[in-house]
Amino acid sequence: MSSTFGQVFRIHTFGESHGGGVGVVIDGCPPRIPVSLEQIQHELDRRRPGQSEIVTPRKEADTAEILSGLQDGVTLGCPIAILVRNTDQRPGAYDEMAAKYRPSHADYTYDAKYGIRSASGGGRASARETIGRVAAAAVARQVLDQFHPGIEILAWVKSIQELNADVDPATVTAADIESNIVRTGDSAMVETMIARIKAIRADGNSVGGVIECVIRNCPPGLGEPIFDKLEADLAKAMLSIPATKGFEIGSGFAGTLLTGREHNDPFRMIDGQVRTTSNRSGGVQGGISNGETIIFRVAFKPTATIMSNQETVTAGGENTELQGKGRHDACVLPRAVPIVEAMATLVLTDHLLRQKSLGR
Amino acid sequence: MSSTFGQVFRIHTFGESHGGGVGVVIDGCPPRIPVSLEQIQHELDRRRPGQSEIVTPRKEADTAEILSGLQDGVTLGCPIAILVRNTDQRPGAYDEMAAKYRPSHADYTYDAKYGIRSASGGGRASARETIGRVAAAAVARQVLDQFHPGIEILAWVKSIQELNADVDPATVTAADIESNIVRTGDSAMVETMIARIKAIRADGNSVGGVIECVIRNCPPGLGEPIFDKLEADLAKAMLSIPATKGFEIGSGFAGTLLTGREHNDPFRMIDGQVRTTSNRSGGVQGGISNGETIIFRVAFKPTATIMSNQETVTAGGENTELQGKGRHDACVLPRAVPIVEAMATLVLTDHLLRQKSLGR
Amino acid sequence: MSSTFGQVFRIHTFGESHGGGVGVVIDGCPPRIPVSLEQIQHELDRRRPGQSEIVTPRKEADTAEILSGLQDGVTLGCPIAILVRNTDQRPGAYDEMAAKYRPSHADYTYDAKYGIRSASGGGRASARETIGRVAAAAVARQVLDQFHPGIEILAWVKSIQELNADVDPATVTAADIESNIVRTGDSAMVETMIARIKAIRADGNSVGGVIECVIRNCPPGLGEPIFDKLEADLAKAMLSIPATKGFEIGSGFAGTLLTGREHNDPFRMIDGQVRTTSNRSGGVQGGISNGETIIFRVAFKPTATIMSNQETVTAGGENTELQGKGRHDACVLPRAVPIVEAMATLVLTDHLLRQKSLGR
Amino acid sequence: MSSTFGQVFRIHTFGESHGGGVGVVIDGCPPRIPVSLEQIQHELDRRRPGQSEIVTPRKEADTAEILSGLQDGVTLGCPIAILVRNTDQRPGAYDEMAAKYRPSHADYTYDAKYGIRSASGGGRASARETIGRVAAAAVARQVLDQFHPGIEILAWVKSIQELNADVDPATVTAADIESNIVRTGDSAMVETMIARIKAIRADGNSVGGVIECVIRNCPPGLGEPIFDKLEADLAKAMLSIPATKGFEIGSGFAGTLLTGREHNDPFRMIDGQVRTTSNRSGGVQGGISNGETIIFRVAFKPTATIMSNQETVTAGGENTELQGKGRHDACVLPRAVPIVEAMATLVLTDHLLRQKSLGR
Repeated sequence: MSSTFGQVFRIHTFGESHGGGVGVVIDGCPPRIPVSLEQIQHELDRRRPGQSEIVTPRKEADTAEILSGLQDGVTLGCPIAILVRNTDQRPGAYDEMAAKYRPSHADYTYDAKYGIRSASGGGRASARETIGRVAAAAVARQVLDQFHPGIEILAWVKSIQELNADVDPATVTAADIESNIVRTGDSAMVETMIARIKAIRADGNSVGGVIECVIRNCPPGLGEPIFDKLEADLAKAMLSIPATKGFEIGSGFAGTLLTGREHNDPFRMIDGQVRTTSNRSGGVQGGISNGETIIFRVAFKPTATIMSNQETVTAGGENTELQGKGRHDACVLPRAVPIVEAMATLVLTDHLLRQKSLGR
Repeated sequence: MSSTFGQVFRIHTFGESHGGGVGVVIDGCPPRIPVSLEQIQHELDRRRPGQSEIVTPRKEADTAEILSGLQDGVTLGCPIAILVRNTDQRPGAYDEMAAKYRPSHADYTYDAKYGIRSASGGGRASARETIGRVAAAAVARQVLDQFHPGIEILAWVKSIQELNADVDPATVTAADIESNIVRTGDSAMVETMIARIKAIRADGNSVGGVIECVIRNCPPGLGEPIFDKLEADLAKAMLSIPATKGFEIGSGFAGTLLTGREHNDPFRMIDGQVRTTSNRSGGVQGGISNGETIIFRVAFKPTATIMSNQETVTAGGENTELQGKGRHDACVLPRAVPIVEAMATLVLTDHLLRQKSLGR
Repeated sequence: MSSTFGQVFRIHTFGESHGGGVGVVIDGCPPRIPVSLEQIQHELDRRRPGQSEIVTPRKEADTAEILSGLQDGVTLGCPIAILVRNTDQRPGAYDEMAAKYRPSHADYTYDAKYGIRSASGGGRASARETIGRVAAAAVARQVLDQFHPGIEILAWVKSIQELNADVDPATVTAADIESNIVRTGDSAMVETMIARIKAIRADGNSVGGVIECVIRNCPPGLGEPIFDKLEADLAKAMLSIPATKGFEIGSGFAGTLLTGREHNDPFRMIDGQVRTTSNRSGGVQGGISNGETIIFRVAFKPTATIMSNQETVTAGGENTELQGKGRHDACVLPRAVPIVEAMATLVLTDHLLRQKSLGR
Repeated sequence: MSSTFGQVFRIHTFGESHGGGVGVVIDGCPPRIPVSLEQIQHELDRRRPGQSEIVTPRKEADTAEILSGLQDGVTLGCPIAILVRNTDQRPGAYDEMAAKYRPSHADYTYDAKYGIRSASGGGRASARETIGRVAAAAVARQVLDQFHPGIEILAWVKSIQELNADVDPATVTAADIESNIVRTGDSAMVETMIARIKAIRADGNSVGGVIECVIRNCPPGLGEPIFDKLEADLAKAMLSIPATKGFEIGSGFAGTLLTGREHNDPFRMIDGQVRTTSNRSGGVQGGISNGETIIFRVAFKPTATIMSNQETVTAGGENTELQGKGRHDACVLPRAVPIVEAMATLVLTDHLLRQKSLGR
């Protein structure tokens, strides 16, 4: 059950970093939704390696093929299968990895769980696995467009290490973010962040940071207490992304410093709508969207792959040292931005359709 | 589907704050597990209102009845239904609430979602809903004891506002935590925290904070990539608890300030086991437990109920003011400690049984 | 997961024949549906023991209590928990059962599966378990009434052994069926069937038969290929009822004798609707309702409890003989009629809400 | 959710009769199971069109490709994706079908449900969809072999119209069945059945029949009451196969003619095992396997595609006539035998792994 996400708009992903390919089967997508290969490909290109000078040079065209579920560019209501072939396979480059557990990677835990592990690349634990999510979310986006075209889902790099972008969540645009290869919303911080990533890569080291995401114009009423609260499903979605270590919504951890009197969001009628005059709730109250902008942040640890020698053990149980070599993303955040958006899109689409099942 | 949690060890909770009662049905519990009403009652008493001078004085005995699934104190493999009757019902005290949306509560969003709302108490959004979770986790704990008796799940109050407890996650004991009504692990901070809560309550205000939780002696191999990673399921579990705004595991948000060279956890063979010499991963790598202590933190916002007058709107769409009155928890954290432990217990038990289904 | 039925309109049942009680939690019920305790009680009374001279004299009032999910007689969108207490507990009457496996009962298989078994009554395998289903279906019926009030679900006893009722599925009414204690739709057969049941009971023996069920005015479009076809879900629903051995829809097994030319249902436009001029499909084509009357039949084996001595073995593995004694239903069919209707109602309601989730 | 089958060993199928291909993603397969492409291909060849003179001449090589989840012929514990390309696409041959609803096919109901329909072939309703099931079952078979190598699952053609094969369920072998192109177990009936199919095809007509299936050496204890009883899941599995109209297990519909005294299966200790001396239960009691041979039958209606002109309506709502032409299976049963076996294999494997999750 582990590779399925969603209750009504369900996706099933598959594929290792090396092998036939990676992909997704989408089930529960409403019929008669226009979907184009271009839309899917556009999103895949945003998460693709080799897209800029600050990401891994691994060359993968990541060309999607839609195997089923569409006719003349419109969904049939049947499962939509999408396949992206693996092309740049160099298993030889990973020989040492097969024998030695890379620190803070999933090599050891996969062996511990399954008693077997993909000998090359990261196998299923590779970030390449997220291709299926991004492709599925491109389809989900069309479902949102059909039922709630105004919903906007936008993520950006909020920080890299201590470098903090000054971004106004209310006004930042997709164009702002896509205008720079870091995908931050603060133009003043772009060069500093790029320089940091380049410097850290030159040093064979890596960095992490925080991605912030907003969902604007979300209709009130989405989210299903008690367990499938909107923030709970968003938290799960985000923590399922490789390299994530934290999630917070609205006021988050900083909100624990406030008193209730400072923290509560007063209600006011504005233009005939129930609105709040502040948004420390982050657009969700009691697990259900309240119509305000949903805003959350996701912490990404520094990439585990570094070019230093590291202490580790072999699969056979001997202490050893792992040599740093090969290709790596010194900072995954620019490529993780579309993945955060994708997971948010999947959560929202699922809850939108779940709400319909209540006859609402 | 919203009141179900777990895939194999599944719980279904029910009940509003006012009405016949609250409870849970547990399905998928292995047979022949000894379970006593005393164990369940003990955990319920830890989350019960009125248990100390710093929590809400609402008087609920919260006496559990096991309706099914046990025989002579042993599970039958059949659904275990547990019921706790509601006793202290004072609907009159909430009359104003029925008409006016309480700021940062779920009143408005329930109306927006369902078009109807429990007129008294918080209905399903009340923290009383967590009784079913705590009762179910007391049963789950017995399952763990049967298959992995060494697993220890322990939570404590890490901070209240800026008051930060100095707790050593490696050595703190259940006795340390239960020795004080705040349920913090730092004896030097107990009186300060109690004083803060009393002062804030006297002011009719409220505070939040952070709860930290460890899972010790967790066997390696638990967690199911890609989507049901152990940290993803923990994140969802924690964000489903009322009043939570954030989750982080291991190095969390602070880890984003480090480089990979600083952050990676080296592997070493220790006593014939694969171990890490640091634990910034927080006991989970690639979504799977690695045998180290799992450690995570959960942010709780300040209680939404305060004794101040607040701007709000009526259900009919008029601006108005809500009078502060009634009973409230000025700080939910002491009572939330057993709830955090309960949700962690449910996640772990489910993943333990899921691992068995792989024949491992 | 074994006590959950449905995907969107989900029910979770619990309870053994002896113990605190039996019941159900309904999750996914749309809000604002009027539900009365009287409606639930009415259906429970139809399946209740002791209701007539041809069913088991076991005395159970089977009084339902709604624990949660309703307010002023209207659903809240929250889980609806319903409890029926066990009252007529005579564990002593079953002492021999605890030691000896009753032939064609579930005693041995429960032991084989769980390594433990309810020592009295049939435990979870008792027909008493169906109370939760019937109560849930009474709620589901109100959901249908809200969205498709014209849908009619009607079952009757088609045969008892070789006694075959001549019932016109197109015209038989609920009043026809409820007018006699056998619940057959053929008034000419009533006395013969009653006489057969009384004779077989007098002999300490038992009989089975076939129940036929129609769903009239079902809208076209319900059912979800590939695996959740309407007939597949109906088949599963029916085979989950105790004592069932077969299911057929439309032409069923007899249809295998025909050629395609004889069997196909021609389409014609009638009153502006696509209709078929015959109905060998039984109202379902390709797993989806076609707007014609859905008609199916369910085979019930003769009751396993008989008053004869039978060869069997003890739980300890010794050959022995079981003495026939106690109370029994010589024929379960009259009481199974509302259970068949209940399961059909649950399937239909679930698929109706699933169809809504497609935005259709 | 409609294209997912199983709870622990889960399969997700995809694909239409025309388009990129059909296939399956298997999730929950235990790791370290040896699986070969040859095993999969062998089963696909058994259901393939064009395999003999009595099945449709449609030419599809049905060559499987394993896209993920295996390494060096062993499962990784990750999703196993299998793809079979469509090759023999002649959309032109189906032009009339796009405009006119074929009687007793799914054309109309797909339009009614989805508001759109695959314009060529049967789309998702084509029997070609079953390729994914058969491929997945070939993998499941290896799981059974790993944990319970003695389990034997064997189906055969029991009848075609009134032609009834005399097969001894206790002794018939796979070799007996595969020795003839009808796949019946009665050598004396082979020529008669072949002649019937040829005659009916020459007439442009079609026939149906009954397939019988046994599961030998099934361990006791499989099946999960209340709703996921083994017979309930088998019934659902079988009724999800295209063209099926009925299911019965053990004594089935004929068992309704017996009395309880005649029907009950006495228990005896045989070779230290609890056994029954008759098997009218069909290997399942109370929804759980009892260790005896599981035996069930499935009714298949005559193929809906016939070469006669038939009354029907257009998608636009006009009465019209459909011309009979094209390729068809005059009798699907020989090709349905491996599909029945496949679905039985999937049910059994899922329940075997579910039993493991109980720690049993």
